[in-house]
Amino acid sequence: MESAGERFPAAAVAAVLKPSAGLPEASLQVRGYDFDRGLDHRALLQSYLTTGFQATSFGQAVQEINRMIVAKLEPLGEEEETRADLNPCRRQPSGCTIFLGFTSNLISSGIRETIRYLVQHNMVDVLVTTAGGVEEDLIKCLAPTYVGEFSLRGKELRQSGINRIGNLLVPNDNYCKFEDWLMPILDQMVAEQNMEGVKWTPSKMIARLGKEINNPDSVYYWAQKNNIPVLSPALTDGSLGDMIFFHSYKNPGLVLDIVEDLRLINTQAIFAKKTGMIILGGGLVKHHIANANLMVYADASLVFPLLVAETFAQKASAFGSEKQHN
Amino acid sequence: MESAGERFPAAAVAAVLKPSAGLPEASLQVRGYDFDRGLDHRALLQSYLTTGFQATSFGQAVQEINRMIVAKLEPLGEEEETRADLNPCRRQPSGCTIFLGFTSNLISSGIRETIRYLVQHNMVDVLVTTAGGVEEDLIKCLAPTYVGEFSLRGKELRQSGINRIGNLLVPNDNYCKFEDWLMPILDQMVAEQNMEGVKWTPSKMIARLGKEINNPDSVYYWAQKNNIPVLSPALTDGSLGDMIFFHSYKNPGLVLDIVEDLRLINTQAIFAKKTGMIILGGGLVKHHIANANLMVYADASLVFPLLVAETFAQKASAFGSEKQHN
Amino acid sequence: MESAGERFPAAAVAAVLKPSAGLPEASLQVRGYDFDRGLDHRALLQSYLTTGFQATSFGQAVQEINRMIVAKLEPLGEEEETRADLNPCRRQPSGCTIFLGFTSNLISSGIRETIRYLVQHNMVDVLVTTAGGVEEDLIKCLAPTYVGEFSLRGKELRQSGINRIGNLLVPNDNYCKFEDWLMPILDQMVAEQNMEGVKWTPSKMIARLGKEINNPDSVYYWAQKNNIPVLSPALTDGSLGDMIFFHSYKNPGLVLDIVEDLRLINTQAIFAKKTGMIILGGGLVKHHIANANLMVYADASLVFPLLVAETFAQKASAFGSEKQHN
Amino acid sequence: MESAGERFPAAAVAAVLKPSAGLPEASLQVRGYDFDRGLDHRALLQSYLTTGFQATSFGQAVQEINRMIVAKLEPLGEEEETRADLNPCRRQPSGCTIFLGFTSNLISSGIRETIRYLVQHNMVDVLVTTAGGVEEDLIKCLAPTYVGEFSLRGKELRQSGINRIGNLLVPNDNYCKFEDWLMPILDQMVAEQNMEGVKWTPSKMIARLGKEINNPDSVYYWAQKNNIPVLSPALTDGSLGDMIFFHSYKNPGLVLDIVEDLRLINTQAIFAKKTGMIILGGGLVKHHIANANLMVYADASLVFPLLVAETFAQKASAFGSEKQHN
Repeated sequence: MESAGERFPAAAVAAVLKPSAGLPEASLQVRGYDFDRGLDHRALLQSYLTTGFQATSFGQAVQEINRMIVAKLEPLGEEEETRADLNPCRRQPSGCTIFLGFTSNLISSGIRETIRYLVQHNMVDVLVTTAGGVEEDLIKCLAPTYVGEFSLRGKELRQSGINRIGNLLVPNDNYCKFEDWLMPILDQMVAEQNMEGVKWTPSKMIARLGKEINNPDSVYYWAQKNNIPVLSPALTDGSLGDMIFFHSYKNPGLVLDIVEDLRLINTQAIFAKKTGMIILGGGLVKHHIANANLMVYADASLVFPLLVAETFAQKASAFGSEKQHN
Repeated sequence: MESAGERFPAAAVAAVLKPSAGLPEASLQVRGYDFDRGLDHRALLQSYLTTGFQATSFGQAVQEINRMIVAKLEPLGEEEETRADLNPCRRQPSGCTIFLGFTSNLISSGIRETIRYLVQHNMVDVLVTTAGGVEEDLIKCLAPTYVGEFSLRGKELRQSGINRIGNLLVPNDNYCKFEDWLMPILDQMVAEQNMEGVKWTPSKMIARLGKEINNPDSVYYWAQKNNIPVLSPALTDGSLGDMIFFHSYKNPGLVLDIVEDLRLINTQAIFAKKTGMIILGGGLVKHHIANANLMVYADASLVFPLLVAETFAQKASAFGSEKQHN
Repeated sequence: MESAGERFPAAAVAAVLKPSAGLPEASLQVRGYDFDRGLDHRALLQSYLTTGFQATSFGQAVQEINRMIVAKLEPLGEEEETRADLNPCRRQPSGCTIFLGFTSNLISSGIRETIRYLVQHNMVDVLVTTAGGVEEDLIKCLAPTYVGEFSLRGKELRQSGINRIGNLLVPNDNYCKFEDWLMPILDQMVAEQNMEGVKWTPSKMIARLGKEINNPDSVYYWAQKNNIPVLSPALTDGSLGDMIFFHSYKNPGLVLDIVEDLRLINTQAIFAKKTGMIILGGGLVKHHIANANLMVYADASLVFPLLVAETFAQKASAFGSEKQHN
Repeated sequence: MESAGERFPAAAVAAVLKPSAGLPEASLQVRGYDFDRGLDHRALLQSYLTTGFQATSFGQAVQEINRMIVAKLEPLGEEEETRADLNPCRRQPSGCTIFLGFTSNLISSGIRETIRYLVQHNMVDVLVTTAGGVEEDLIKCLAPTYVGEFSLRGKELRQSGINRIGNLLVPNDNYCKFEDWLMPILDQMVAEQNMEGVKWTPSKMIARLGKEINNPDSVYYWAQKNNIPVLSPALTDGSLGDMIFFHSYKNPGLVLDIVEDLRLINTQAIFAKKTGMIILGGGLVKHHIANANLMVYADASLVFPLLVAETFAQKASAFGSEKQHN
């Protein structure tokens, strides 16, 4: 073999080791956090930018959100103030209108507390979520959700009247409490529609529910307090829908119009000086289909608190949030 | 519709809202980090245990690794000391032998610095990796790896002699430097085999390369210095294999035996008082196939530094590592 | 080493090779298709049940859907016929009401033809989809979608006015044609609302669009022809929403109520003798979060035509579909 | 709102509906299989090329493999015949040397039968696999693997001495039978090494095991019969490794050299006129890391038999395989 083989390796070496063209000058060298510096969490998170893979994507997301925050905190010109007056939302205009979208499972998880913080302190301007993203927040004000395990079997849990969402557990009783709380509000909404001509939309209903729940743990309590619109066109697609359906047999006639909400979300974008978008959840499948490199690739339960730690929480005083927790 | 429908909802309500059995008493309520407390990274990471989804898995991984560390730091009995003397590895025995397995992409990324820290300070006892997991560490001592983008096209990069690993870039020149460095060492290894009867195995070869690279940035420099064995049975399955192949035409005869290394790894487990295992990378596919809930579900580039921050780095002084970085 | 080691292997062997309890008697042995039998596609697909992994899940999905079809084709009793008369949908009742849910990307792909076949031949009873799942079907009647590549870069495509959905390409011109087609229909809908008191809902709007498109390639053409309701509560969440928004400035006032559609879908379930559910798309993320073993794990573009080949298409004559294609 | 809004939509429309540049002329229109043509499996699989998403990737993989087969069946020139004589493998040279790589789980599943077919009929030329990819094939000749469920819990199964691989079950007894079968062969191998100077490598050991198992269901029985080399450098990394380890205490000294096998695989590539590569398994994680569009994206248990049906099985007579099963 050697005698024949000896003719080949030179060519093979050449093929494998083609000389490389230069990289762009500004290219960053890969280098991770050095724990020998001692443990400094901010420095660790900053080292992610040059760590590679999704850690680098995290670093880029931090930069992107910080750009949104800088734009948001810039003072507005006179013309912009005037134009913003025409916005049907009575929110104070800012240099960047930030849309925050999230799936229901994040509200079921402890990420709800991070979202609540952003809404409470006016750090974001428009929320977009699913039906579950609304109702799970309200239900949590009535009774807790528990930590379980991914491997608990659905059949056994259903026999115990317990619902599993990933590794979280929600007893059926929570939904009963939700029903008891919701039904009189639905009666009242139908009455206002029929008597006062209120034209209900999903966003108006969510604001009403946020007001009724009257609980500072709730994302939607703060949303209505701060005039942050919440868009959820498929609001009937969950437990809230079951309740509205049952209620419609006792007290029919409620109308929820999605066209007016469509105008609401689109005008938020049109009236904005700049817009920013932070979308949480739904991650993997989107990536599989679209092959895109969005910023939250990993499970948002892990990443989002760290992202907020490196962005909004660093500017808490600029949002006037210091006062509230001292 | 109403007249007919009115008969059904009661049953439907009952079906949807079956009363729930009690949850186990010790069940933790889901609750995320409250940024209104101000930003405290350790408290934030500790809140992950009750945040749900992979954040909870992170919290459980922290607990598990901390159990390993506690066991490791326990003093050994006399009999255990004696038995450990029989271990062919000349490592100081400890209460828990920790195996650390990792894929090559983590060495390419900045996670290499975290692994180097664990090896330098004797925090882990046996390494298991792939061929790339060895050679990329050595090559990084010769020339840097750069941060690029996931979306760079392979065809264009190949024309420029640049290799992409996810969003990392390695110029071909780095492999040329590796070849220049490696060839004389291979000559020397063949000579020692033929003259002194050295029986080479992958682990012996890795220890030799770690000694030759003589660079404190290298994982394998510290591994050989601390008598930490590195198992990599498919050591020929990468760039190192290409080099050994080319070299075999100039200077044939090198033998790398995998049976002796098999004995080495198995005896590490047999001589151990307790064993712990930390496996990084290879994640998603394993989960898909085995449906298991292992601890590192997300991209290890994001999670592993935070895991180390909450575990080994908290006990750095117990490992005597303070001295070295002051 | 040998002297010490010799004491251990016996115990180690015992630990590794614990005797196994018997498996349930009916357990199937793993065995794949034997190509030496020659190529018989149906036999190949039937062998999937014992092939393991997702091939077995495919085999189980075939069995499950075939159970739905058997139930669907069973004759109804007199009482069931009477009860079904109360259903606001004017569909012929059957022994199993099959719900088919699908994401928009499947309508963009050639899976649309498979869905159209099921709807045309009354093989399914209720459709649930997203806004894109409606509009992409209509747009395809106006201009084609093309096969591209996953790796085409978004930025370059946007500059050429081309949209990428995975490896599919849709020119912007298609959306312009859609706008030209849609605007007069929206005018007409507003007029009917104002003049004739029509209360529009997403499902009524979709049925109207299916009638107007008047094209046998369209899923929604056949849905309205066969009185198959299409539920899409977030119908405004896409290109259709953009059009409705633009239109609302020229001709405001359209109301789309989601409560009446909620009643429609729930009554389909309540009036059904049995129900079956086939959900396509959205796959991976659902699995990641819920850890469930649903039936369509792989990309539906690959699996769904094969599923239909093994199920509905085997019973085409029972659905009276033979006539139409002879 | 309307008065202000009316100024904006024109610009918004323009932004959304930028005119599109033309697509390349040869672009294929998306179109799926039309079941109204009746059920024709080959036509269905051929329609995948224009179905989009992974169905299109399947169609492209079919084309690619068919290119390999065409090249393989081309007659060789005289010089090529001569050069091939120097190849240490005694295989009949062909116009394309096809490498087939696969993970162990595919051998555990019924995909083993498809791989066996390709090897038996000389349709592929070099196999690359893991330790499990070798031992599971041999064990299946001694006792069957069973179909189970993904959701069976590991803890309970371990107590019953049953191992789960995805939704497949392997009783511990199978490994006991494997041990009983293997030990005398290992004794014999050590004897041949010591007496006759045999230099064992993983590929030589696999060929020996394939000969000893002497069972036409085995992939490796046919591999050795057809002089198809099997490369598996980490052959000790599994149950086979456990057995070799236990055996080394009774009868030490076996050496398995991976350098000679490295030369073997590299020379297969160097002596080939053309090469083709088919890699099964390991899919998702590779895609995540490398962002590449390889051909087998979905679970190989679903896709690979269909790929073979559209490629090798269409040319079975050209490989002389008809004779063997008639």
